[in-house]
Amino acid sequence: MAGALPTRDDCAALDRADNLARHRAAFALPEEVIYLDGNSLGARPRAVLARVAEVVEAEWGQDLITSWNRHGWIDLPLKVGDKIARLIGAEPGEVAVADSTSINLFKALAAALRMRSGRTVVLSERDNFPTDLYTAEGVIELLGGRHRLHLADAAGLIDAIDGETACVLLTHVNYRTGAMHDMAAITRAARERGAFMLWDLAHSAGAVPVDLNAAGADFAIGCGYKYLNGGPGAPAFIFVPRRHQTEFAQPLTGWLGHAEPFAFGPTFRPAAGIARALCGTPPVLSLAALEVGVDTVLAADLAALRAKSMALGDLFIRLVEEQGGAGFGLRLASPRDAAHRGSQVSFHHAHGYPVMQALIARKVIGDFRAPDLLRFGFAPLYLRYVDIWDAAAALIEILQTGGWDRPEFKRRATVT
Amino acid sequence: MAGALPTRDDCAALDRADNLARHRAAFALPEEVIYLDGNSLGARPRAVLARVAEVVEAEWGQDLITSWNRHGWIDLPLKVGDKIARLIGAEPGEVAVADSTSINLFKALAAALRMRSGRTVVLSERDNFPTDLYTAEGVIELLGGRHRLHLADAAGLIDAIDGETACVLLTHVNYRTGAMHDMAAITRAARERGAFMLWDLAHSAGAVPVDLNAAGADFAIGCGYKYLNGGPGAPAFIFVPRRHQTEFAQPLTGWLGHAEPFAFGPTFRPAAGIARALCGTPPVLSLAALEVGVDTVLAADLAALRAKSMALGDLFIRLVEEQGGAGFGLRLASPRDAAHRGSQVSFHHAHGYPVMQALIARKVIGDFRAPDLLRFGFAPLYLRYVDIWDAAAALIEILQTGGWDRPEFKRRATVT
Repeated sequence: MAGALPTRDDCAALDRADNLARHRAAFALPEEVIYLDGNSLGARPRAVLARVAEVVEAEWGQDLITSWNRHGWIDLPLKVGDKIARLIGAEPGEVAVADSTSINLFKALAAALRMRSGRTVVLSERDNFPTDLYTAEGVIELLGGRHRLHLADAAGLIDAIDGETACVLLTHVNYRTGAMHDMAAITRAARERGAFMLWDLAHSAGAVPVDLNAAGADFAIGCGYKYLNGGPGAPAFIFVPRRHQTEFAQPLTGWLGHAEPFAFGPTFRPAAGIARALCGTPPVLSLAALEVGVDTVLAADLAALRAKSMALGDLFIRLVEEQGGAGFGLRLASPRDAAHRGSQVSFHHAHGYPVMQALIARKVIGDFRAPDLLRFGFAPLYLRYVDIWDAAAALIEILQTGGWDRPEFKRRATVT
Repeated sequence: MAGALPTRDDCAALDRADNLARHRAAFALPEEVIYLDGNSLGARPRAVLARVAEVVEAEWGQDLITSWNRHGWIDLPLKVGDKIARLIGAEPGEVAVADSTSINLFKALAAALRMRSGRTVVLSERDNFPTDLYTAEGVIELLGGRHRLHLADAAGLIDAIDGETACVLLTHVNYRTGAMHDMAAITRAARERGAFMLWDLAHSAGAVPVDLNAAGADFAIGCGYKYLNGGPGAPAFIFVPRRHQTEFAQPLTGWLGHAEPFAFGPTFRPAAGIARALCGTPPVLSLAALEVGVDTVLAADLAALRAKSMALGDLFIRLVEEQGGAGFGLRLASPRDAAHRGSQVSFHHAHGYPVMQALIARKVIGDFRAPDLLRFGFAPLYLRYVDIWDAAAALIEILQTGGWDRPEFKRRATVT
């Protein structure tokens, strides 16, 4: 896309030529809204409503308790896990859907530290998603303080892996900047030095190609409600490759992870395979919605999704910068090279919070992350090139006119 | 109900006089089904369908990420917690809805053992719900084996509490027999001897009166999908009384339990109050359904519910026994005195599994628990006296005719 700056008509032409364009119809997007927050909460697949109504009326309402067998509720955690496996380079039987991302991280990290009991360091990134660091703290404290959390900068991560490192814990795509780690290289370095590699795929699954087994990853976790379109607070997932499953002993030993959950025996014996990563009864309504969301991603060609995501990001950066973004105080926070970027673009701006509120008031929905980041997520399944054009135009106009500088845009909401 | 054995007409008369009868209309019960498994999965409140559709269409679909503020999703865990608090003798701000029952037990027990660090024993009941014992094992193992789990029989529990006991962990109403512990007496004994008292209210909340604060309970957890009618796998709850909240430090330190969840700071600082019991993002669809379920219970008079529950249980026992139950091999497994029984009645039977399958084939839905228990749950919100009469008649007829002795009733399903 060199040459003249693309016009809105050029973008409309790109949409007409887009093989993925038809997937937009699978989503119920409100009129006039440009939704650039699918990295935080994916849009609602149309099919969710009918599926959830079916679960509520026909399954729960009519068949009641018998639905655990009759409608396969009991199989949903591994069935949906197998579907997610196809998006992240895992085999069937290596992914389970359960609980929240944080809780799955707790399970995986606690198991990893037991399996590398001679080593004492959890290595992570200073700029990792805070909840991952909190969870690591929680695991370490519970284990009696024998371990410590070492935080390195992204550039120094590989050098920081040494003979003390029990587990490297990284989020593949940074939630603030969208910067994407080299999964293959870091995983290789960790394994060469005898450390486990645990990936958080919250901002990757459904958005960028991931091949956990090709990389040799030891564990992974991820989120159901971002690019997997599973709905607010959808259950999360956990990956344990077959080679680790026998040794994998996670501390949240609930009945669903038992070898014989319905024998109600007095002592815990972990299930064979990935089922040992389960704990309690799954929230079926939310899990059924997640399955529909995952299906929307599986319906598309993943390589085409990635190509479009990169193109949307490149287009947005170019439109913002070439229309004077820097002069209005915008500074790119994301990698300029799409190959090193997930499916989002972030800009620093000194007045980021009110600027984002002004955008939202104009129905361009991104979000803000302290201290100064405007985040724009590009879910290629349902976004159009014209959306990117319109969003960039709105941002430039708000900055040009100072339209953000109003008291109502400066009041902080509970959830930012 | 002494005198002649009640007829079906007598039962119909009891239904006509029942002040709680109108609540049945709030539930979508299938025609001809007699549902005696509300202790495993509560029936579906009619209002759930509209509420879930609203969350899916209007909130998620239309307002997308802004719903966390606009529709108060972020407040749901404590808002629904406050509602449950009214059912279990807790104050507002002492109950949170989150995760599964097992995971809440993990949090509460891990916190309790830290707070009583000089003591080493978790005391529970041999016949406790197995998942509670598995979870206790999981906590103990993770803490490095400094603690041990001591199991006593129900009769010997109080005597087993001593200066080594860090925490007494009991399920208030036994899942197999329905036997109900004396919450006040056991809690008093635990506290007198310096131990914490942690109650699992899975089979109590919404079914029997519970007054945690009057008893002086230290922690409690419970289930959303049984008598609270929250739907399959509804989120669970956790109770931490105000006096323990400052010291309560649970190890699942996710972002939602942080003092400033949206500051995304690098280290964990627990929220003030019960919010520190939260971990990750709640499954909003399932949580919204749970709120509707809890509302169905709050709409009724709790003392009247308990009185009806006791009457239904007494009626069932009498109808079964006086129509020859013992001669057909049935032996009461539940306390005969309703005051010591939760809202269920269980019978031993040597062929319990096929007998229950034969009942289910006749649309009388209870469940079976190994090795030989027929379980019948009596949810007084939506059951009628005639349902009890019909269920007893079906059971007697199946036993009388040997109608259970067929191959199709002996095949075990995945979920029993």
